[in-house]
Amino acid sequence: MSEVSRNRWANEFREWFREVIFKAGVYDYRYPIKGVGVWPPYGAKIRRNVVSIIRKLLDETGHDEVLFPLLIPEEILKKESEHIAKFESEVYWVTQGGSERLERKLALRPTSETAIMEMLKLWVKAHTDLPIRIYQIVSVFRYETKATQPMIRVREVTTFKEAHTAHATMKEAEEQVQVAVKVYKEFFDEICVPYMISRRPEWDKFAGAVYTIAFDTLMPDGRTLQIGTVHNLGQNFSRAFDVKYLKPDGTHEYVYTTSYGISERAIAALISIHGDDHGLVLPPNIAPIQVVIVAIPYKGHEAAVYSNCRDLFEELKEAGIRAFLDDREDITPGEKFYYWELKGVPVRVEIGPKDISQGVITVSRRDTLERMRVKREKSVEYISQLLMRIKHDLRERARKWLKGKEHEVNEINEARNIISQGLGVALVPWCGDDECGQELEELIEGSILGIPMDEHIECKGKKCINCGRKAETYVRLARTY
Amino acid sequence: MSEVSRNRWANEFREWFREVIFKAGVYDYRYPIKGVGVWPPYGAKIRRNVVSIIRKLLDETGHDEVLFPLLIPEEILKKESEHIAKFESEVYWVTQGGSERLERKLALRPTSETAIMEMLKLWVKAHTDLPIRIYQIVSVFRYETKATQPMIRVREVTTFKEAHTAHATMKEAEEQVQVAVKVYKEFFDEICVPYMISRRPEWDKFAGAVYTIAFDTLMPDGRTLQIGTVHNLGQNFSRAFDVKYLKPDGTHEYVYTTSYGISERAIAALISIHGDDHGLVLPPNIAPIQVVIVAIPYKGHEAAVYSNCRDLFEELKEAGIRAFLDDREDITPGEKFYYWELKGVPVRVEIGPKDISQGVITVSRRDTLERMRVKREKSVEYISQLLMRIKHDLRERARKWLKGKEHEVNEINEARNIISQGLGVALVPWCGDDECGQELEELIEGSILGIPMDEHIECKGKKCINCGRKAETYVRLARTY
Repeated sequence: MSEVSRNRWANEFREWFREVIFKAGVYDYRYPIKGVGVWPPYGAKIRRNVVSIIRKLLDETGHDEVLFPLLIPEEILKKESEHIAKFESEVYWVTQGGSERLERKLALRPTSETAIMEMLKLWVKAHTDLPIRIYQIVSVFRYETKATQPMIRVREVTTFKEAHTAHATMKEAEEQVQVAVKVYKEFFDEICVPYMISRRPEWDKFAGAVYTIAFDTLMPDGRTLQIGTVHNLGQNFSRAFDVKYLKPDGTHEYVYTTSYGISERAIAALISIHGDDHGLVLPPNIAPIQVVIVAIPYKGHEAAVYSNCRDLFEELKEAGIRAFLDDREDITPGEKFYYWELKGVPVRVEIGPKDISQGVITVSRRDTLERMRVKREKSVEYISQLLMRIKHDLRERARKWLKGKEHEVNEINEARNIISQGLGVALVPWCGDDECGQELEELIEGSILGIPMDEHIECKGKKCINCGRKAETYVRLARTY
Repeated sequence: MSEVSRNRWANEFREWFREVIFKAGVYDYRYPIKGVGVWPPYGAKIRRNVVSIIRKLLDETGHDEVLFPLLIPEEILKKESEHIAKFESEVYWVTQGGSERLERKLALRPTSETAIMEMLKLWVKAHTDLPIRIYQIVSVFRYETKATQPMIRVREVTTFKEAHTAHATMKEAEEQVQVAVKVYKEFFDEICVPYMISRRPEWDKFAGAVYTIAFDTLMPDGRTLQIGTVHNLGQNFSRAFDVKYLKPDGTHEYVYTTSYGISERAIAALISIHGDDHGLVLPPNIAPIQVVIVAIPYKGHEAAVYSNCRDLFEELKEAGIRAFLDDREDITPGEKFYYWELKGVPVRVEIGPKDISQGVITVSRRDTLERMRVKREKSVEYISQLLMRIKHDLRERARKWLKGKEHEVNEINEARNIISQGLGVALVPWCGDDECGQELEELIEGSILGIPMDEHIECKGKKCINCGRKAETYVRLARTY
């Protein structure tokens, strides 16, 4: 993906995104409700692969999958006051069953802290019941009043992975936050999405949290996209829901809870960051089809070509590679190339009479569009390794690209320029005062993502970019989605 | 599971069911909305195993997984008149977003035919776009006014697998119905749930269908439970939604559609049919833990016992068996036996000093409660085979049991007695007339499940059990859930 094309996208990125997810069959936003879409087969397969990755990571780190109800009674959603204050304006309410008016309104979950706390109250009795680490992958709903955008700002978030944990001490909750951050790092590395980890400022933390650590990525148009959050909820929810446990010393204490979530924005990010003017570029572990074989039949050589293709197809399948043999006869090889490039299949193989006579196959990388000829007898081994290399290259290229988009600056106009021109993220020294921070956001017409948690920048001797007082820390500034 | 215990359940079955799913951690119905429950970790694992089985069967038979929105606009849900007439009284309606009243009501899907037809209209243009075979596994909602029952009659069906297909001809739709029936047979065989397949009478078919073929099982209290349905929808929905395709001859025709669904009732059935007074009895392929190893430590032999247990645990894991080593020291072996029996773990292994000195392990089958001593060096092989045998035995025992509960009778009082006393299903000759059939249902205080599709009973020369006219067919009568 060249810088040229990326720049060209800056203005047109949203249009490009809409077009590519629709044409490639990832997501169909023509469903007749605003902000709500359909995952057709190809997109659903991508989604399934991404979901398996996070599920595996959570299963391996002591999390248990559960399933909680969609509906949350009004009085339960309202128990934690900061929480409802934030969510109240964007909750969908069920008020009617059949033709009857319900006695009490039921919310479509905007997130499940409240539903889960209600059950934890029944599940947690003593310290031996702790810790509890559970997660679910469900739809959540937000009545967005802002402009919606497919997969990115939606009213039905169809792929919300939310984890919830409860602990005996604040220290254990803190440790769990670190576990969550580690799991998310591995997850985003695995799906080749680069990230910045920032501790959100006070005014931008999750409603009801003690603090929030967020993962943001950068989209081709220069805006950051929040793709994951980890919240330490302290005892805020356990007090509101009266979730206490019996300590070994016979006294009771409120539990400490955390929650952390990711959504289909992870998929939107990987599509946005790796795609190009030809369409999707999928990391091999996410791609529903990893290798497509396109027969190049010349008159008189059809039988040999097809049989060669079929053999390779069987060999690849045998090796555990998700291969597909495109033997359609009603469209040309050129049309097939175009079709599979749009779909983002990582590797394309062409086999024609010339390849056969020379004992080779022609292999193309979707990410670099390079073509190479490979000895037929080594092709399975070559392709296996190529798939791994592509994944590695995608991840590293994107990581480097993001790194290059973070600009350390000490001057407010410079910071505003960077973010207003879509050049990326500005790293600036800040005093740490909430009022000053919110003023700063207005001045730069952007947001404070927060204090970097993934890198340390020495701010000794620096002055706050806004008020000029002694800087306490560097913070990231950006235009956000 | 002895007949005695089964009979004893007849009256208490519902209570037994509620107790066992709660105590074993399968399903927690204490969530503060009627008819809505939580899948805690153990139940969620059972659910995941069951879901993988149906997913695999559908993937292998040309179905593509998709994901459609939860919300269906009122005007779309109402397009097919028979459909809405049936569902109208049990639809949950979202009428409010934040504090605003929505311009149009949105239904929580009771099933997705209408949402899917709305998109098929965009997806289907020509005969080359057909057939389409898609499925999703989602929550659906029914505002049940009858008494709810956990997992069986719920307001949020959390595990609704619904498949939808579209075809060029009625013949292909008919063939698809047969494919669906075959898939469901394999599915229920796989989870060891016995079934009867019946073509529902006209008045009991799915709202909007040409006909419905249903899978019913029998619960221990003698009532049948509908566990799967397959609908041939003909052109009913495609006409209502104007879904047409271009035929090779240049004319347009409405597509023919089918739909078929199963739900967590499948899990409720397997629990009900195989469970006993000790708790769950899980088929090994469904069980989250297939083998539990309980150490029987005697003073002075602890180290040897635990090391022996750990070795076996590693060997079982190596062999791909889901084993669990219960080395808790704060509870007695007896308490562990009780705990794991409740959880339905198919095989329990005990290892104590005596076992070690004799070079054996003690193995217990959860289904028969038999105990046997097995040579230590052959234990992994023995357990592998035992797991397969248990699955086979559970399935066959249940199949035979159901077979014994079908009674061919020719007399109306006899039929009523069978179903009113919870003895099972009555097979009776029937004239085939709808009016007569509905009268028959009133007389027997039960339902006509329909015409058996899985067995043929000659009705030549027989007279309708109700009106006395010439019998057209046998039908199954039952009390249903």
